[in-house]
Amino acid sequence: MRAITQAAGANLGAVTYHFGSKWRLYVAVLDGLLAELAGRVEAAAATAGVAPDRLRRIVAAYFAFFAAHPEAARLILHQLTRGTPPPEPALRNLRRVLVAIAAVVRDGATARELRPIEPLLAAFTIVSQSVWFAAAHSLLPAIAGSVHAPLGADLSATVERHVGDVVTRGLAAGEEPI
Amino acid sequence: MRAITQAAGANLGAVTYHFGSKWRLYVAVLDGLLAELAGRVEAAAATAGVAPDRLRRIVAAYFAFFAAHPEAARLILHQLTRGTPPPEPALRNLRRVLVAIAAVVRDGATARELRPIEPLLAAFTIVSQSVWFAAAHSLLPAIAGSVHAPLGADLSATVERHVGDVVTRGLAAGEEPI
Repeated sequence: MRAITQAAGANLGAVTYHFGSKWRLYVAVLDGLLAELAGRVEAAAATAGVAPDRLRRIVAAYFAFFAAHPEAARLILHQLTRGTPPPEPALRNLRRVLVAIAAVVRDGATARELRPIEPLLAAFTIVSQSVWFAAAHSLLPAIAGSVHAPLGADLSATVERHVGDVVTRGLAAGEEPI
Repeated sequence: MRAITQAAGANLGAVTYHFGSKWRLYVAVLDGLLAELAGRVEAAAATAGVAPDRLRRIVAAYFAFFAAHPEAARLILHQLTRGTPPPEPALRNLRRVLVAIAAVVRDGATARELRPIEPLLAAFTIVSQSVWFAAAHSLLPAIAGSVHAPLGADLSATVERHVGDVVTRGLAAGEEPI
């Protein structure tokens, strides 16, 4: 709290005065971030084109969001490690994300561009890979060590393309794989 | 520390006596879990059959590991939120996982069952979805709310099948998708 109020040029009581409590400040910050994320995902989902392209733009929206807010991934993971559901304003924005992804998945199934799939599962695949990369990417070189060649200077662009490939191929209509 | 030593029927000094410090106890617990995980993944990777089937068994190994150790996902996420690389014994076991997955990905590319892909990216896709589900599954009903129908009684089996589908389809050899 001291670090936050100092960075804001305010006194220690400012958080209580403006937000009511430390918890409510946390909820306000989380809510602000997730509202922006939901807006980006809704905009990507509403673009024209075939469903696989719109899914790829949703993945791009996630990567752009985390590039703009590198601290957001750790905040979201922190929510998960608490083991209790996020506060209601955060839930409302997470549901906006689900609704936007669900619309694309349903359009794609109708047009036979995507296989019919529970939208929550499609959302799960997009969200898990995007958040995980945002949280873990700074640790990847240490984890990969000498096992793997480096993935190139622009790791983020490489992984974004990979996640886009896996999502579109993984959800594409077509033959059963082996 | 009090809770841990009490559960072990030991006195408060036992951790320092046996492990040297609280940090070293943490490292030992993390290392023990990741050694088991690496063993399960290596066994799945070493099974006979086509590469897509072996990838599916690796996904199953992750889900079985987290079913046996529900607390492990939060411990791993906690590592990520620290923002510093895991301690060396943990890294060694994470690299065993990467090596096992890389072998399957290379066999699959050689046999043209999988498209040629950087093994680290394939591992990323498998690990991110598996750990995310283990950490988030108890929160999914609250997040999905009224947006989605429930995914059935055995959520874990449904998601395991879905992740297996996405991984095998997403990495399969074949036509470029739309």
